[in-house]
Amino acid sequence: MASNENDVNAILDPLRAAVKEQGDIVRSLKQSNAAEVDIKKAVNELKARKRVLEEKELLLAPKNDFDRQKMEDLLKRRFFFDISFAIYGGVAGQYDFGPMGCAMKINLINFWRQFFVLDEQLLEVDCTCLTPEPVLKASGHVERFADLMVKDVKTGECFRLDHLIKATLQKRLTDKKLAEDLKNEYDDVIVKLDGYNQEEMNAILRKYDIKSPITGNDLTDAIEFNLMFSTSIGPTGQVKGYLRPETAQGIFVNFKRLLDFNQGKLPFGAAQVGNAYRNEISPRSGLVRLREFTMAEIEYFVDPEEKTTEKFANIKDIVMNFYSACNQMDGKSMESMTIGEAVANKIVANEVLGYFMTRIYLFLMKVGVDPKRFRFRQHMSNEMAHYACDCWDAECLTSYGWLECVGCADRSCFDLTQHTKATGVRLTAEKALPEPITVDVIECVPQKPMIGKTFKNVGKVIIDTLSNLDEDSIKQIENDLNTNREYNLIIGDETYKLTEDMVVIRRRNKTVHVKEVVPNVIEPSFGIGRIMYSIWEHNFRVREDDEVRTFFSLPPIIAPLKCSVLPLSAQEDFIPFIKTISEDLTRLDISHKIDDSKGSIGRRYARTDEIAIPFGITIDFDTLKKPHTVTLRERDSMEQIRAPVEEIANLVKDLVLGKIAWSDVVSKYPKFEQQESTMKNEL
Amino acid sequence: MASNENDVNAILDPLRAAVKEQGDIVRSLKQSNAAEVDIKKAVNELKARKRVLEEKELLLAPKNDFDRQKMEDLLKRRFFFDISFAIYGGVAGQYDFGPMGCAMKINLINFWRQFFVLDEQLLEVDCTCLTPEPVLKASGHVERFADLMVKDVKTGECFRLDHLIKATLQKRLTDKKLAEDLKNEYDDVIVKLDGYNQEEMNAILRKYDIKSPITGNDLTDAIEFNLMFSTSIGPTGQVKGYLRPETAQGIFVNFKRLLDFNQGKLPFGAAQVGNAYRNEISPRSGLVRLREFTMAEIEYFVDPEEKTTEKFANIKDIVMNFYSACNQMDGKSMESMTIGEAVANKIVANEVLGYFMTRIYLFLMKVGVDPKRFRFRQHMSNEMAHYACDCWDAECLTSYGWLECVGCADRSCFDLTQHTKATGVRLTAEKALPEPITVDVIECVPQKPMIGKTFKNVGKVIIDTLSNLDEDSIKQIENDLNTNREYNLIIGDETYKLTEDMVVIRRRNKTVHVKEVVPNVIEPSFGIGRIMYSIWEHNFRVREDDEVRTFFSLPPIIAPLKCSVLPLSAQEDFIPFIKTISEDLTRLDISHKIDDSKGSIGRRYARTDEIAIPFGITIDFDTLKKPHTVTLRERDSMEQIRAPVEEIANLVKDLVLGKIAWSDVVSKYPKFEQQESTMKNEL
Ligand SMILES: Nc1ncnc2c1ncn2[C@@H]1O[C@H](COP(=O)(O)OP(=O)(O)OP(=O)(O)OP(=O)(O)OC[C@H]2O[C@@H](n3cnc4c(N)ncnc43)[C@H](O)[C@@H]2O)[C@@H](O)[C@H]1O
Ligand SMILES: Nc1ncnc2c1ncn2[C@@H]1O[C@H](COP(=O)(O)OP(=O)(O)OP(=O)(O)OP(=O)(O)OC[C@H]2O[C@@H](n3cnc4c(N)ncnc43)[C@H](O)[C@@H]2O)[C@@H](O)[C@H]1O
Repeated sequence: MASNENDVNAILDPLRAAVKEQGDIVRSLKQSNAAEVDIKKAVNELKARKRVLEEKELLLAPKNDFDRQKMEDLLKRRFFFDISFAIYGGVAGQYDFGPMGCAMKINLINFWRQFFVLDEQLLEVDCTCLTPEPVLKASGHVERFADLMVKDVKTGECFRLDHLIKATLQKRLTDKKLAEDLKNEYDDVIVKLDGYNQEEMNAILRKYDIKSPITGNDLTDAIEFNLMFSTSIGPTGQVKGYLRPETAQGIFVNFKRLLDFNQGKLPFGAAQVGNAYRNEISPRSGLVRLREFTMAEIEYFVDPEEKTTEKFANIKDIVMNFYSACNQMDGKSMESMTIGEAVANKIVANEVLGYFMTRIYLFLMKVGVDPKRFRFRQHMSNEMAHYACDCWDAECLTSYGWLECVGCADRSCFDLTQHTKATGVRLTAEKALPEPITVDVIECVPQKPMIGKTFKNVGKVIIDTLSNLDEDSIKQIENDLNTNREYNLIIGDETYKLTEDMVVIRRRNKTVHVKEVVPNVIEPSFGIGRIMYSIWEHNFRVREDDEVRTFFSLPPIIAPLKCSVLPLSAQEDFIPFIKTISEDLTRLDISHKIDDSKGSIGRRYARTDEIAIPFGITIDFDTLKKPHTVTLRERDSMEQIRAPVEEIANLVKDLVLGKIAWSDVVSKYPKFEQQESTMKNEL
Repeated sequence: MASNENDVNAILDPLRAAVKEQGDIVRSLKQSNAAEVDIKKAVNELKARKRVLEEKELLLAPKNDFDRQKMEDLLKRRFFFDISFAIYGGVAGQYDFGPMGCAMKINLINFWRQFFVLDEQLLEVDCTCLTPEPVLKASGHVERFADLMVKDVKTGECFRLDHLIKATLQKRLTDKKLAEDLKNEYDDVIVKLDGYNQEEMNAILRKYDIKSPITGNDLTDAIEFNLMFSTSIGPTGQVKGYLRPETAQGIFVNFKRLLDFNQGKLPFGAAQVGNAYRNEISPRSGLVRLREFTMAEIEYFVDPEEKTTEKFANIKDIVMNFYSACNQMDGKSMESMTIGEAVANKIVANEVLGYFMTRIYLFLMKVGVDPKRFRFRQHMSNEMAHYACDCWDAECLTSYGWLECVGCADRSCFDLTQHTKATGVRLTAEKALPEPITVDVIECVPQKPMIGKTFKNVGKVIIDTLSNLDEDSIKQIENDLNTNREYNLIIGDETYKLTEDMVVIRRRNKTVHVKEVVPNVIEPSFGIGRIMYSIWEHNFRVREDDEVRTFFSLPPIIAPLKCSVLPLSAQEDFIPFIKTISEDLTRLDISHKIDDSKGSIGRRYARTDEIAIPFGITIDFDTLKKPHTVTLRERDSMEQIRAPVEEIANLVKDLVLGKIAWSDVVSKYPKFEQQESTMKNEL
């Protein structure tokens, strides 16, 4: 084991050193305020080295014998999910959840609500998806939410450019006769792909003469393709709208109402669960990259000067894996430490961010993510979204590599500021000052009669505008009137010439008790589909003695159904017992499935295992005898016990809610021995 | 009272007679197979008379002093819901649910799931909204899901034509100088508006010279405006898609997978909760007519020959209000009867439909609909949607009149047949026959070598097509070969000439054990927003002694929050009690709100009443003494009792779950007397 570890380190150490070396170069360039283009180049090289290191690490990690094809077969066969509109040929990037996937998704979302909305007393809202253009202009999505794409000049077929370059060059690399220098160039391009801008991408496209992989035709230059679906709202065709690409904007535009609802006080959090839409250019990999997907987002609004929370004390000792931007630059691996340490050492920027990261972690562990395949990775400054000032991704290790499942960003005051600018509505909060203070204020007092006389019916608009100017504008008026004796006030497309007799500029002292702040916002953003996918991978099992028996070891809280009820045979006498037990379970809100289909009990257990049902109640011939008893089977261990009919529903409920452990049940009730494995042959 | 009833009848009887007279005319026209245009005219007249009757009935009904403005003020002030994107000017037909509306909506949907999905063991699915065009062509929505609209010829502004005609003529009617004959004509048009076709509407538009109400400009002829939002899927711009106008189609296209999941057996039901989108031309009236709204739909698939269910026995004695098509034609009112009678007398078509209607009724009663303001109204044959063969609307009486909240339609085999036609995938089920039977079968056996030789690489496609023909097509081939010695097989755009040596037509006897059926589907379709709106109207209350104190008397099961926790004052000593109680409530999953804001306790109770919180726990000075106790207040009666701190969370839980009634609590615990009404002045 130890020698093995040494071998691994022998391979990785030089790669780590190479990353560190480049990280140091980036740091010193930044410190010396080098030209932006030089920094960018150095960062690209850094990312490239990081990627080489990471790929090697994954390659050398102990293998598990996970078989994705086998798991996906099961997911489709038992209709957890499948491609939408398949009878019409299907649509890429769209999937429907069948009964089992839907039930699991609902359980996941309901638990999310309990864990976040109820426990953190968040204000949950439910806003519309259809969003008018001005909102998404202000948020930056109309301009910046885009990927690069090229088209086949003859057929018009589209390709996402980074994917296309990668695929083309990878294919050429398989050619044994490829010249060594070209091979190196291709490797280099693939590795640096994420960092190129539009111009550089076009240059690569031309230099390597990349054509359509389908027709061999020429390709257009790269164009930016906006990922939002557009439509028009109302019958005139004049109100342009988009399907929201994230749920967050619905919360920001409602900020004032939510602040009012919270009686004007900070901090508070709002939440939303709903669909988001992204017209991905070439969606692949199932639930990982969809065109329509469910998000659960929290926007936690804080005073920018007080990013602390009392509740941090409750979680400060929890240990998690952190892969900081710093470690990424230094070629180091992720590190385990307590969140308390991470915040104290400024690895995580503040307590509120740290608190939510920890809650995200605790949540994911409860729903079945494997702690050994989990980490928080910090964004490096050049990969951050346009709105974020710090960001950590909760990533799960899957057969696709490390997969971002939850983003946790500090969006600072970006969004509220943008919407304030766009609408003129001040999205701010007031904060009580510890002591009242005296401030200088400058006021603009419109002289109503004069303005009215001069401008007639637009007078009112001018007076309103003048009454609501900010400090800088007032100073500008003062200045212009002093120097030019007039000021040109612009409202919309019109300019109005104001003279000295129309405004009085007044300065005075004022005692204020409150201060206006633009709240900052911490945003945990959950991709429900990706979380489900990771849970499936982390909980996919094959029975040791029988490799066709596959199942999901899902925690009861998210299992689609909690319990099965299986009569041993089609015996008439069993029916009243099935009915009683089913009614008891229904009364306790335990979702269950009665499986009275033909087939041996072993075969039916295997079927319920496949859909992750954690507990199975079997009615057999002993049930008919007094006192009436049934068997109860646990999915993962396949152990069985015997318990009285009238206790069984409550027992299952306690197991599902985690009030009692299976080991306690085994020690309390008589064990029931049965040879499931002997039934292998009939499957 | 009785004399009053006589007065009312004196007014209504002639109107009822007028409806009956016209109903009889319609019946006899239909019986004598009169020309369609004559039947249509007669039906329009019938509808007009019905409407006059109904309006008069509503007018004469005992008034309640409901004040819609007052209720809507409350709903907006406490942010149950409000117009979307208000800071950007808002968008018609789109509303956001704030924390209280959202929590109520979630509670309503969760209860719906428990009541329908769990209790009826339905297969819930979650399908995508974005739908490719061919699916909605097959369902008939591309062609038929449209309203008539006209445009201002200069500005392009749009108006929904029926609304415009009505508004314009109503306005002219207010002119005292309007000639009597015109007055009668206008009245007549308004009343018959629902029944006119496109041509008749255009004629009215021109005859009465209706102009744009905004600009006075001329209007275009009426055009059909399709109510679906369109967009394009993927980057090529070539895949046209729509946002689904109902969730049902997602279930139909998944029929085969669902049938498989149910191991091939009928009957079974599928369900879906999700958003639907309709680009209404002129949405008004808040949640009643939205462009984006949440539906909950059930598609219950049955054997067309067995529309019965065992469970009917459990509900057959439940009494409901039925307003049958027959009664509507006869000018009679709705009738109360048991669902058993209604099915036995063929008023409701079959047991399965009757069973679901009853479950809809029971559900609505549990969530707070007033039974006295509820009825089922049957569609008359001319108002049925294109896919339905029988349909009953669950209607709630609101200040907007009778409002359709749930539609319950027998869609027969319409949808499955349409999708089968469009895709060639047989959406059918197999039904075991009581006895095996012998049938004549006709088979088409392609002669592979000959076809291969003649058609080369398209041979395979031709062979596949020939192997999958239906009986009629095979007979056609047989006939053509017999008469012309050849047959033209059409595949796509190509025609292939087949000769006798290429196919053998064989007839033989076959013993079959199953029969193929196209399932019929019963569809209950719930509009969540309209149900919420009706619940609010039916539960809006004003305190008897204080008309500014308004509140919602919502059943605990759907109340946004179940409980408030109120410290009497900002006393430090109260804090540990608040914490303990809040933790106890959280552990029991009781959503609650701690209100430690300033303001008297009476004022804070009033605030919690407004958001419908059914129970309030107050921590006062007696709480500090041993044994520690708190008060518990019930919202509707405002009664209070005192109970021990350690019992309180469980007591609230039992009240919320309906395990114990408030009256029991009052008799078990000491009453606490307090004068809320004296605090009136400080509100
Ligand atoms: N097939 C693949 N597998 C793994 N990595 C890949 C990948 N293709 C590209 N990447 C990597 O992902 C990085 C970013 O690529 P992007 O394409 O820009 O980002 P993303 O991972 O799709 O989500 P984003 O980061 O925009 O999510 P957001 O916080 O807004 O949204 C919040 C949450 O919503 C979810 N989400 C976002 N887009 C989604 C989608 N299209 N489908 C399903 N879930 C989605 C996620 O859980 C996310 O955490 C790149 O570095 C790239 O290397
Ligand atoms: N302002 C108004 N108030 C009351 N009645 C009016 C009205 N304007 C017109 N009507 C009457 O409504 C009748 C039909 O008008 P339509 O406009 O054709 O129908 P609808 O009532 O909007 O719903 P529909 O019947 O199409 O619902 P569906 O089962 O598909 O869908 C299933 C369920 O979805 C809900 N739903 C459908 N459309 C909705 C929308 N736009 N917003 C919110 N909920 C909606 C409903 O609960 C429905 O039961 C006409 O006779 C007309 O007189």
